Amino acid sequence: MSFRKMKTREEIERIFYPASIAVVGTNKVKGTVPCDILENILKDGYQGIIYPVNPKERSICGLRVYKYVIDIEDQVDLAVIVYPASVCHLAVEQCGQKGIKSMVIISAGFRETGPPGTEREKLVGQIANKYGISFIGPNCLGIINTDPLVRMNASFARRMPDEGNIAFVSQSGALCTAVLDYAASKHIGFSKFISFGNKAEINEIDLLNYLKDDPLTKVILLYLEEISDVQAFMEISRTIISQTRKPVLVLKAGRTPEGASAAASHTGALAGKDEICEAAFRQAGIIRCDDIEQMFNYAIAFAYRPLPKGNHIAIITNAGGPGVLTTDMAVRMGLKLSEFSEETTRTLKKNLPAAANIKNPVDVIGDASPERYSVALNAALNDDNVEAAMVILTPQSMTDIKSVAREISSVAENSVKPVLASFMGASDVAIGVDLLQKKNIPHYQLPENMCRAFACAYGFTKELEKKHTPVPRFADIDSAAVRCLLDEALAAGRHYLTETETLNILEACRLPVLPRAVVSSCSEALYVAADIGYPVVMKVVSDFIVHKSDMGGVVLNISRHEEAEEAYKKIIRNAEASLPKGAIAGLLVEKMVGDGQEVILGLKRDPQFGPVIMFGLGGIYVEVFKDVSFRIAPVWKESVREMITEIRSFPVLAGVRGKKPRDVESIETCIERLSQLALDFPEIKELDMNPLIVEEKGKGCFVADARIIL
Amino acid sequence: MSFRKMKTREEIERIFYPASIAVVGTNKVKGTVPCDILENILKDGYQGIIYPVNPKERSICGLRVYKYVIDIEDQVDLAVIVYPASVCHLAVEQCGQKGIKSMVIISAGFRETGPPGTEREKLVGQIANKYGISFIGPNCLGIINTDPLVRMNASFARRMPDEGNIAFVSQSGALCTAVLDYAASKHIGFSKFISFGNKAEINEIDLLNYLKDDPLTKVILLYLEEISDVQAFMEISRTIISQTRKPVLVLKAGRTPEGASAAASHTGALAGKDEICEAAFRQAGIIRCDDIEQMFNYAIAFAYRPLPKGNHIAIITNAGGPGVLTTDMAVRMGLKLSEFSEETTRTLKKNLPAAANIKNPVDVIGDASPERYSVALNAALNDDNVEAAMVILTPQSMTDIKSVAREISSVAENSVKPVLASFMGASDVAIGVDLLQKKNIPHYQLPENMCRAFACAYGFTKELEKKHTPVPRFADIDSAAVRCLLDEALAAGRHYLTETETLNILEACRLPVLPRAVVSSCSEALYVAADIGYPVVMKVVSDFIVHKSDMGGVVLNISRHEEAEEAYKKIIRNAEASLPKGAIAGLLVEKMVGDGQEVILGLKRDPQFGPVIMFGLGGIYVEVFKDVSFRIAPVWKESVREMITEIRSFPVLAGVRGKKPRDVESIETCIERLSQLALDFPEIKELDMNPLIVEEKGKGCFVADARIIL
Repeated sequence: MSFRKMKTREEIERIFYPASIAVVGTNKVKGTVPCDILENILKDGYQGIIYPVNPKERSICGLRVYKYVIDIEDQVDLAVIVYPASVCHLAVEQCGQKGIKSMVIISAGFRETGPPGTEREKLVGQIANKYGISFIGPNCLGIINTDPLVRMNASFARRMPDEGNIAFVSQSGALCTAVLDYAASKHIGFSKFISFGNKAEINEIDLLNYLKDDPLTKVILLYLEEISDVQAFMEISRTIISQTRKPVLVLKAGRTPEGASAAASHTGALAGKDEICEAAFRQAGIIRCDDIEQMFNYAIAFAYRPLPKGNHIAIITNAGGPGVLTTDMAVRMGLKLSEFSEETTRTLKKNLPAAANIKNPVDVIGDASPERYSVALNAALNDDNVEAAMVILTPQSMTDIKSVAREISSVAENSVKPVLASFMGASDVAIGVDLLQKKNIPHYQLPENMCRAFACAYGFTKELEKKHTPVPRFADIDSAAVRCLLDEALAAGRHYLTETETLNILEACRLPVLPRAVVSSCSEALYVAADIGYPVVMKVVSDFIVHKSDMGGVVLNISRHEEAEEAYKKIIRNAEASLPKGAIAGLLVEKMVGDGQEVILGLKRDPQFGPVIMFGLGGIYVEVFKDVSFRIAPVWKESVREMITEIRSFPVLAGVRGKKPRDVESIETCIERLSQLALDFPEIKELDMNPLIVEEKGKGCFVADARIIL
Repeated sequence: MSFRKMKTREEIERIFYPASIAVVGTNKVKGTVPCDILENILKDGYQGIIYPVNPKERSICGLRVYKYVIDIEDQVDLAVIVYPASVCHLAVEQCGQKGIKSMVIISAGFRETGPPGTEREKLVGQIANKYGISFIGPNCLGIINTDPLVRMNASFARRMPDEGNIAFVSQSGALCTAVLDYAASKHIGFSKFISFGNKAEINEIDLLNYLKDDPLTKVILLYLEEISDVQAFMEISRTIISQTRKPVLVLKAGRTPEGASAAASHTGALAGKDEICEAAFRQAGIIRCDDIEQMFNYAIAFAYRPLPKGNHIAIITNAGGPGVLTTDMAVRMGLKLSEFSEETTRTLKKNLPAAANIKNPVDVIGDASPERYSVALNAALNDDNVEAAMVILTPQSMTDIKSVAREISSVAENSVKPVLASFMGASDVAIGVDLLQKKNIPHYQLPENMCRAFACAYGFTKELEKKHTPVPRFADIDSAAVRCLLDEALAAGRHYLTETETLNILEACRLPVLPRAVVSSCSEALYVAADIGYPVVMKVVSDFIVHKSDMGGVVLNISRHEEAEEAYKKIIRNAEASLPKGAIAGLLVEKMVGDGQEVILGLKRDPQFGPVIMFGLGGIYVEVFKDVSFRIAPVWKESVREMITEIRSFPVLAGVRGKKPRDVESIETCIERLSQLALDFPEIKELDMNPLIVEEKGKGCFVADARIIL
């Protein structure tokens, strides 16, 4: 993972809006990539000038062919390279000499094929870098820009998509072919369609940054196998969402270890742990999709209609059963069925037949005419209690499917509230579905998917309402002390810190280490115990011991002066009996905590996601229920609160069964401090506070045990 | 819910295989139900004789019309009634007089419209009953039998489906129209297609019983809004599955309270609690589907290919990205990627290009020819480590889609292992998809759905392997004693049993009530305490007190003779101070249990599902995690074990964090006894053992508190 400067808007814009294109390495053999690309640019109506380059041909597709790029007399804005991998670097060198600043390298045979390919990819990158060339690829399907200003299909896809406001960005080229076909069948259009392959130069973050400001793009879809720089990816996603309100939908492959290893053999991609990925996406406001169908189901809800203001929906159907199924699914997805106003009820009663159900879900019944649909939909959308409408049609023998579709579209077009439709079936309803799709009414073959899509859109509305306040930096963290402790350990070649070092680091961070002191005499122990306040715990301190309890080196629950004296002597006696001379570094006297709730707070540095903070309740909750939450540092203030409340066992902290609520605020502070520590000291590979004991509200929490690995 | 005799096979068979049909109430008005039905029977190739009946017409569709059913000279096997609801009873009366024994009542306007309709429905039922007529409906779309022997489309659906081995049975008529359209688009055929509407006579249980023995039906699909008799439904489903290995797939509406109330307004159906429904289905081996698409995705996996022997799959793809996505989903669904044998690896290496990935998932790469697919699929299916294969295709520019489909089908047809396919995209791949569907290769637009469907089929394989041993009746239950206690309470008009009565009933069932006795003197108390063994608990017994602890009526943890004496006196003193004279019925001396794990065992009688047994861990597990399991009584032996192990907190009972495992067997016995009690005494509406304290393995469990409501 290399941290480099993001590409500027201009650098990417040049690739998508070239006034001239050289297709370097094209040929005459129909059905091969080098030929298909040229044909596609030509036949799909490119608005600029095309220069085919091939040393052996005079003309291809009726165009004059140039031997080499440098032979072209005019300026070339974009080179599309389709030469075999083994000679690509030569073509790139020539492009550089010609002064070309943008390329799309289609050719395969690079990193994805193993070490020699990786070398070739590096070489190409170096040459491009030397000449300041920005490029997409290699090993990609190419790029498409539907903007009529340029109309460029610089890809070997079978088809050029319609214009639209969805951008699709994919790490897999083959998936693009399936997506284009799928989208065409549903009249889904695209603003930009980008296969970026091995991303040797331009990566998904550059592309996201560009699409952020692309006025033609309203929704961004990504298929990813691995993420180049998770922190940057999260940041740019968050920026897009908060600044431009464009939803970012991601289909991430490699959810399972098996999938990840398949991905690795596919592009050498390193897939991260799935739960962490899930958390990171949620934190960044990214919408994660399970499959391509879901991704487009969601995308059209975003692309075609305004965002919903709320989750109160009206359902209009000509069939009871599907009405019930839709209601079920809507409610399971967290939507609410609107209670109609009196006026709406009156309108429906007046205009619908007696057998109709005028309550929500409205059943306009089997013989419903287009007008009946129109009346019901209008009434619902005019009701202040309704924030969106879902229309269902089943193809009954008397149903005029096309006219119903026409009525729905015309009502929907005049409303600022989202209208979604599900014409159930396939060929019988096709004529209506086609009309709806052309009119940009989000249509779903199944009402269940309609509900999911709307729930997703509503979720995004709520996401946009969320505040994201950065946690202010804690000025009271003694960074110098932490630095010093870490450096000492590293200098000594140690990766495990001692208990004392660990606690000292936590103290330097003002994390609530239990009041404690290391003493070297009995009188000192008694003094410290009195100072801390009974009850206390005493433990032998020695680098030689791992299991202190086993050798009698720990006494718990010391509640009086006399007990303390006895405990001191006992520990020393036991330690001297089992340890070599001089091995006892002292005795630790520590506050004994009562019946606080044990929680775990941890930091792990993930190779892909970076500093991951983990939170959960101790013991059974983590071990049996795996009930933990993750966030990537740095955390937002609101995210910290969410991280605590989203675990299923949160009610235990909030207070159940007559128990008092715990001091959740004190945990929040710990998470915020841990986040800062994680960012400031990348040497810390792992840090566990386990348990962190949380007292009643207002009484704080205490680190009872901790561990740091460098 | 009425418990009546199930329809015989012959009674239902008459409806589906009539040699002659009277369409009673048909007319000439095209586009109306009475006319559409006649036309459908006629045009879709019915093999028998059709008699239109209408008092006002001479001929319809070229057929001679009879004024009344009784006017028909010949025998009529089936009457299809399409008269308005208000006159249906007259038509039924005439059918009875004519000696017709089978009817389908299409007409709407009955129970679904409110009380007058309900009366009409009753009347029709009574007349039919008088003449011994079996009938489907009213308020339905009709029935279809694709068997070439009869070829009957006695419905007002827009289309007749293809022949096939899937039976579809639906409570909603409108949903049928959508399903027929959907299925036609995918070349899915049906054996029987049945809309049963209000089920005034024949219900889903009769139909299941019939389909069990229908040789043309291999898979049974049901859409239900409510279930007529859950016990019978579960029993017939279980019988079908175990005797005939036909999977039963159910889409049940009314999952949420809102959906249930919509269903109620739709057919007056009463939907039960969803978790209980879920449990009941699982217990019966029924496959529950979330939506129509999922139902058919699963159905074709069952209908077209042999059941998988295991879950080890091979994936063959021409695109890396989709291969990764499929691997992910497969693994998440519990499938395993086969490790290829050396021979397979050799074959693949020899026949695939160097750039291909010969490990599973096999990537035959973008330019794959049909032969390459064929070689890879054959090699995989011949490998003993492979139990099924999934083939993925993306429409790349050089892909010969139709030929790949042809190769796949021909390889699949010669294998006993399931082969599933996903040609990703839509119109570009349509030609291949069409071929696969016609050749009965289960095809899925998305690989994700392919994995889900296969996982479902594999789940069914496992279900078939399960044993179902009935729990033997316990002969040691003192039913007479239970009967006597219940009768006494009921005679006194009480619905809450006293603690003593409750515990006596549990004892009569040999449920492990804590050793205890009610005493009336201090010396007796001391004697009993010594007999039970210290530590003990003492509680005042009185019908006047609800909260015994509050008034000092309970003393816990009495560990010695002297303490017992003191406790007795204290309780009596406190009770006398706060209760009216003569209100103290005695003192309860009970064993005090140690640190056993608290569980909850309960019985609730659900209006729809009958006796529901609930199990969960006490306290936080139930309250916070809602971590409970349900079964409907009677329970099978294996089901009892499952019921305990399926809760998420089971590890707590199995022994975590160094704790010893608990006596799970003793809980099993309690569940089995509770199941018998539930069946023998329907008066018991609710019974809670909370907590049931479970000791270490081998040491049993004890009911510490219980409650019975009649």
